[in-house]
Amino acid sequence: MIIKGFSTSAVAAGIRYSNRLDLGLIYSDVPAVTAGVFTTNQVQAAPVLIDKERLMQGRAQAILVNSGSANACTGEQGMKAAFTTSRLLSSCLKIDDSMVLLSSTGVIGEQLDVGAFRSAMDKLVHGLEEDNFNDVAQAIMTTDTVPKVVTRSVMIGEQEVRFMGMAKGAGMIMPNMATMLSFVITDAQISFPELHDSLKQATARTFNRITVDGDTSTNDMVLVMANGSASNSWIDEENPIDKQIFQDTLEGVLKDLALQIVNDGEGATKCITIRVCGARCEADAEQMARTVANSPLVKTAFFGEDANWGRIFAAMGRSGVRFDPDIVDIAFGGVVIVRDGLAVGPSAEKAATLLLKEKKIAVCIDLKDGVGCEEVYTCDFSLDYVKINADYRS
Amino acid sequence: MIIKGFSTSAVAAGIRYSNRLDLGLIYSDVPAVTAGVFTTNQVQAAPVLIDKERLMQGRAQAILVNSGSANACTGEQGMKAAFTTSRLLSSCLKIDDSMVLLSSTGVIGEQLDVGAFRSAMDKLVHGLEEDNFNDVAQAIMTTDTVPKVVTRSVMIGEQEVRFMGMAKGAGMIMPNMATMLSFVITDAQISFPELHDSLKQATARTFNRITVDGDTSTNDMVLVMANGSASNSWIDEENPIDKQIFQDTLEGVLKDLALQIVNDGEGATKCITIRVCGARCEADAEQMARTVANSPLVKTAFFGEDANWGRIFAAMGRSGVRFDPDIVDIAFGGVVIVRDGLAVGPSAEKAATLLLKEKKIAVCIDLKDGVGCEEVYTCDFSLDYVKINADYRS
Repeated sequence: MIIKGFSTSAVAAGIRYSNRLDLGLIYSDVPAVTAGVFTTNQVQAAPVLIDKERLMQGRAQAILVNSGSANACTGEQGMKAAFTTSRLLSSCLKIDDSMVLLSSTGVIGEQLDVGAFRSAMDKLVHGLEEDNFNDVAQAIMTTDTVPKVVTRSVMIGEQEVRFMGMAKGAGMIMPNMATMLSFVITDAQISFPELHDSLKQATARTFNRITVDGDTSTNDMVLVMANGSASNSWIDEENPIDKQIFQDTLEGVLKDLALQIVNDGEGATKCITIRVCGARCEADAEQMARTVANSPLVKTAFFGEDANWGRIFAAMGRSGVRFDPDIVDIAFGGVVIVRDGLAVGPSAEKAATLLLKEKKIAVCIDLKDGVGCEEVYTCDFSLDYVKINADYRS
Repeated sequence: MIIKGFSTSAVAAGIRYSNRLDLGLIYSDVPAVTAGVFTTNQVQAAPVLIDKERLMQGRAQAILVNSGSANACTGEQGMKAAFTTSRLLSSCLKIDDSMVLLSSTGVIGEQLDVGAFRSAMDKLVHGLEEDNFNDVAQAIMTTDTVPKVVTRSVMIGEQEVRFMGMAKGAGMIMPNMATMLSFVITDAQISFPELHDSLKQATARTFNRITVDGDTSTNDMVLVMANGSASNSWIDEENPIDKQIFQDTLEGVLKDLALQIVNDGEGATKCITIRVCGARCEADAEQMARTVANSPLVKTAFFGEDANWGRIFAAMGRSGVRFDPDIVDIAFGGVVIVRDGLAVGPSAEKAATLLLKEKKIAVCIDLKDGVGCEEVYTCDFSLDYVKINADYRS
């Protein structure tokens, strides 16, 4: 798929490793309405600080993204380096420097190699083509094992509107109001308030519901650029139906990418949905689902394909959510394994154990105490998770 | 060491596995002043519920403890089973049934095998001897690799007062107002309010400061029995100096046991102290230290002996504690690796990496923003942690 008016490029700039794509560019022929959500970690990388400032204008034309170095905890020198890479790109593209957004991922605390950017910039800009989107998705990978891309098209009024999205992330994943890196481009014609609002709402129900290891990164961001090339009738406050279609489609794109991240979680062998129903409110349901999803004991039990619901119960009990343990039901897939707080019995456990051999697993916890219901998506905790993270920098 | 007036016993009752000690008894010739602290997990095991009730009288004479089954999430049947085991013991010992305290550890959600208790009770009671303390410490082990015991003696007034303590725990360890199982016996003569107060304060600074995996158990308890056999002058509200000596000694016993638990954390290869100084208050310091100590990325980096301070910084940033990243110092042992928010350089990192080869590691984070200072004790996250917990029930 091609999104009208957008082109992309990626090169091997040798920022940390040689001979692998590590620098990417997303470019819109015209300034695109652009919204972003960013990490809530108090420690924020230089590109995050710069983008938050620049996005106050609601427009951007280019995203320059590198892997290998996060440019986080790098102080004044890191900010200067980021501004320099922006100017290198804007002068090469002949656009206003404030139209450039920056994004970095990789090791925290090391200074950015500006020389690598300088040497690669010409090649990067000259490589801009309509169909390089997958290359950019590859350039932003760190411990990811596969690039994560999604495409959608939808009719808005009489016009077909297209979306392409990419994401990266496999560890340090428990996004909070944002996620690891994700970029979405669309040719939709939409005003900034509607775009920003759609992004915030879609993120809350997608990226903010996944967790690999409970660690929130310093560099998380989701950017969405809409350059209006589809020429659909403007999506603005007078157009609630079109806005709903746009937002639903965007949420679908982000959810697909979020689940791709969980699927590719560091060392993951299982993709697990923890659903809590019957809580007093949605916030309670989310808090409990998140506590269960982050429990190392629950996650290692899934890796061991062990229907160890006692560990789920223990995590529920320390979640801070009030509930009555004596009326709780727990099901694995369609198999109820705990009814009213007690084990159903060996045959249920046997059936649940069989289900655990699948790659996709759904756990449903019913507190029977209200209508609050939320899902959190996670993966298991495997031997490979430890191997990957004990060796990451070496 | 022997504590006057106490005897202990342990047998292999075959509660879950055969041919291993799994049932222990601690007995005082006379009713002992006894205080306890218990898990704050909302899901509480049957013995926890029973002991909390019985300890309102401030006296006990026996502790009956088993491994193999936690008797948690077992409902009415679990409560009945617990009461039955208590009656089996009290009638054998010919003591009042309310003088028996119960404690269980092991798999959650399975019913207790009361028959195993019944068959073993005679042998258990007849095995009571003054010097079986280590056998009981062995009987309460689950994934522990070593029994955890400590002894102390101290002069209170003219009298020597003795303490013996034991603990178990290797996983599901982030005690909250209590810990896994720990039992301390002393021949001190002390009134209940002073004993209870000493235990609460000592627990807060010892067991409540350790974490193996952030999971809080359903069965945590610390019990301390003081039978007065040392005949020291009564420790009560009129005797603040003796109380301080008693409390300091108890805290020393509990801290020793707490660190033994961290040392023997499931799969642990390192014993790590995370110290946060210069926070606005102690609660902030503790919250940040705990977040860093529970981060899977920080813990796997320690396993990999990687001085990856960026992950520490990222965990600090998501801890919820306000601080200024630009003035923070981080030291590994005596080596300052981050000064004013920036990497000190390759030689500091090299020196820190050498330190990481040690088994005991101290990390000090200075926020330079106040006088709040707290320590949390943890271990690394190894391949063996995953192996142990993927296979635990099989």
